[in-house]
Amino acid sequence: MRIDIISGVPELLNSPLENSIVGRARDNKLVEIYTHDLREYSEDKHHKIDDYPYGGGAGMVMTAQPIFSCIRKLQSERTYDDVLFTAADGKKFEQKNANKLSLKKNIIILCGHYKGVDQRVRDELITGEFSIGDYVLSGGELPALVMTDAIVRLLPGVLGDAESALTDSFQDDLLEPPTYTRPAEFEGLKVPDILRSGDHKKITEWRSEMAIKRTKQRRPDLYEKFKKKN
Amino acid sequence: MRIDIISGVPELLNSPLENSIVGRARDNKLVEIYTHDLREYSEDKHHKIDDYPYGGGAGMVMTAQPIFSCIRKLQSERTYDDVLFTAADGKKFEQKNANKLSLKKNIIILCGHYKGVDQRVRDELITGEFSIGDYVLSGGELPALVMTDAIVRLLPGVLGDAESALTDSFQDDLLEPPTYTRPAEFEGLKVPDILRSGDHKKITEWRSEMAIKRTKQRRPDLYEKFKKKN
Repeated sequence: MRIDIISGVPELLNSPLENSIVGRARDNKLVEIYTHDLREYSEDKHHKIDDYPYGGGAGMVMTAQPIFSCIRKLQSERTYDDVLFTAADGKKFEQKNANKLSLKKNIIILCGHYKGVDQRVRDELITGEFSIGDYVLSGGELPALVMTDAIVRLLPGVLGDAESALTDSFQDDLLEPPTYTRPAEFEGLKVPDILRSGDHKKITEWRSEMAIKRTKQRRPDLYEKFKKKN
Repeated sequence: MRIDIISGVPELLNSPLENSIVGRARDNKLVEIYTHDLREYSEDKHHKIDDYPYGGGAGMVMTAQPIFSCIRKLQSERTYDDVLFTAADGKKFEQKNANKLSLKKNIIILCGHYKGVDQRVRDELITGEFSIGDYVLSGGELPALVMTDAIVRLLPGVLGDAESALTDSFQDDLLEPPTYTRPAEFEGLKVPDILRSGDHKKITEWRSEMAIKRTKQRRPDLYEKFKKKN
């Protein structure tokens, strides 16, 4: 899989793409990720990529030309399955979107700017718009990194332990049960006996009960989804 | 305001904290942000910070000792209003949480690990647990960066234009209307006449109509909230 991320501040993207699971996946050639600096595509003599909004108001709006030029150049080099845009008013990005996107060959992610992008870009070039949550960020770079991480960790070979991604939260609409590791006692605080019992049937039952209880308490919306399916 | 971020991969945090709005806010002394490497607090001779889960199962769990040591050291130096944890099973992080957190003096954000942290850490040290959305990430670093960005841009003086943060999406439960910038015509695609009319009353009306229409179409859940309030 190949992911191209287009941004007005590509430097911001570096450290999350170079470390941890995404960094290792790139080193191991399990995914190709390229970042593109919008300023390099601007035909303006000062390499400007934003301008005042028509009709007045606060904040700057990203101009159409550099984005059209960058996306068209990439599309002339290979076929893209999707050209995604990170936007506060996009569709909610959820695990099922990450699952679907992880099966694509080439995708572009255009990082939005918090006061928006010229609507003509969205009308003409973008095939999907995603918001990662109901909060305002200064740019689409962190959302692009979040989407990239959620996708890349699902690619074959990226997680050492194949089972690991399958038992994640959200894959079955339930939150995960509490986890404990050594020592069995830390400053007087003990690990629940059942987890140390070696009785795997009971452990599975306990985990399932705790997962349901936690979901019911913390995320009644997910619990309703789970109930309908089960 | 001061934000301390604790992580097992602090290098991952660098570029988003050094660039754009958060980077400038730090340069201008409008916020202090420090990252802490959990490995430096590990009493294990190999600086290990995770271990196998009790009861079996895939993935490694973050151990209690380095986290207790790091948080206690910070708490011995100053008083913290909150010790937050990024977790898939936390409360949904929303704009209202960013608003509230932006009024605090000192907060700690502990970055979770995708297979969890020893439950005793959550029981004893954590005052708030947040999830940034219903998708699985490989670690809590991106969520910590998302929360930091959402908070920092609300601090006084951080956004050049004071009005800008107030007209953001979500502050009034409505998405933003479409935005356009120059040129008035790009490859045959035109900016709506009304935005170029100079009639500010009509522009405001059009924007409000479009915001409501967009919210109704894309986010019926937000539209219901908006209707109840208005």
